[in-house]
Amino acid sequence: MSKAQNIYDDPDFFDGYKKLRANRYSANNLEEKPALFSLSPDLHGKAVLDLGCGYGENCAEFQALGAVAVLGVDISEKMLAVATAKHPDIEFICADMSDLSFLSRKFDVVFSSLALHYIEDFGAFAKDVYGLLNDGGHFIFSQEHPLTTAPLGGASWTRDSEGQVLHYNLSDYARGGKRSTRWIVDGVEKYHRTFSEIVNALVDAGFTIEKMLEPVPTQETIERDKSWEKDLHKPNFLLIKAMKR
Amino acid sequence: MSKAQNIYDDPDFFDGYKKLRANRYSANNLEEKPALFSLSPDLHGKAVLDLGCGYGENCAEFQALGAVAVLGVDISEKMLAVATAKHPDIEFICADMSDLSFLSRKFDVVFSSLALHYIEDFGAFAKDVYGLLNDGGHFIFSQEHPLTTAPLGGASWTRDSEGQVLHYNLSDYARGGKRSTRWIVDGVEKYHRTFSEIVNALVDAGFTIEKMLEPVPTQETIERDKSWEKDLHKPNFLLIKAMKR
Repeated sequence: MSKAQNIYDDPDFFDGYKKLRANRYSANNLEEKPALFSLSPDLHGKAVLDLGCGYGENCAEFQALGAVAVLGVDISEKMLAVATAKHPDIEFICADMSDLSFLSRKFDVVFSSLALHYIEDFGAFAKDVYGLLNDGGHFIFSQEHPLTTAPLGGASWTRDSEGQVLHYNLSDYARGGKRSTRWIVDGVEKYHRTFSEIVNALVDAGFTIEKMLEPVPTQETIERDKSWEKDLHKPNFLLIKAMKR
Repeated sequence: MSKAQNIYDDPDFFDGYKKLRANRYSANNLEEKPALFSLSPDLHGKAVLDLGCGYGENCAEFQALGAVAVLGVDISEKMLAVATAKHPDIEFICADMSDLSFLSRKFDVVFSSLALHYIEDFGAFAKDVYGLLNDGGHFIFSQEHPLTTAPLGGASWTRDSEGQVLHYNLSDYARGGKRSTRWIVDGVEKYHRTFSEIVNALVDAGFTIEKMLEPVPTQETIERDKSWEKDLHKPNFLLIKAMKR
């Protein structure tokens, strides 16, 4: 498998990303994170792996929720430098998650937050994760919504003359594969997959799908800022909880 | 549960529908039907139920594939009159599939082709189907693609000045519920559900999801008629194969 792109060690990207994540009202904080944690089983006494852990924020929460062994893996040295400084009691490994063969121990829960759209071969990745789980263990992940990654030219909206969103410009949904888009910086490479490609790859790896979420903003969020209403036209995230029987 | 809409007994709809289905190059014949049959297990000796069987064409194919007991259920008397005349050796029952309590026998495979978007309460329906299946039995269905049913104002496309499709106008995807659209006649009522609503309803009913398909036209079909290329932007159908363990 080819070496994954490591955009997070690009200085411009890193600074932009830091600002984005610091925003309390980001889609991550209002939509993705609550949905991800809602899928978590009881973590008391559990061994947890976080693939694409970034700053290690989620790792720290898994530990606070009772996990006894938390390991964070990320490809970015810059991200892990922050993670290690903030959470010195958590173990972090700098590695490309598209090859997990360096891991010999097993886990009860494997999380991955917003990193899988960087993986080229999701089928091989799902099999790797399956192999890392104890029986009855869970793989819980979030990724960019397939409707977001679909358009070859990048996500865009059609608005009326007053700037109100009319619809999302959906194209190329059934054309799986590489997408090169601008996100903070130019040339961020992601992989688009349809719902059926994702579901079938999980099933083929041996997983049983337990829950799927496409979170939307709360009514309170929309009332505070009408611009969130567009997420009802096209959600930002897809989350899946799958079990190894 | 409220009585389902029976648009198929409207004379104008019935005539229009007959013409549509007679077209060899329809999306049903080129995309939906091959996908549906590709999901079928070996039917030899199997008891098969077809919900929303219409003209009974699929029932006849299930029988030809070895099924020993085939029952077709449809709400439309007009459709079943055609079905009975064409296939006198197959059993058909005229009934609203949103209440399946009239069925006391069990089945090995329950099929439903392009009818579930008429069901208001898919969760209750999935539980009903689960109860009708023998252990190890399959529920295999096709429905309009969730991206087709999403827009409150009906499906539409944006084209350039030469009529070439630029994108599908996606809106209201996360707003599940009733849709009133024009399809052959005005005021056809359907229900929109997101991928996650469909998947979670099946899982909650007890099903294990085995396969999901979003068929697209073959390269041959696109080369014969370029207008099929738009299905690569937004597929027409969603199919799921689910098992009762």
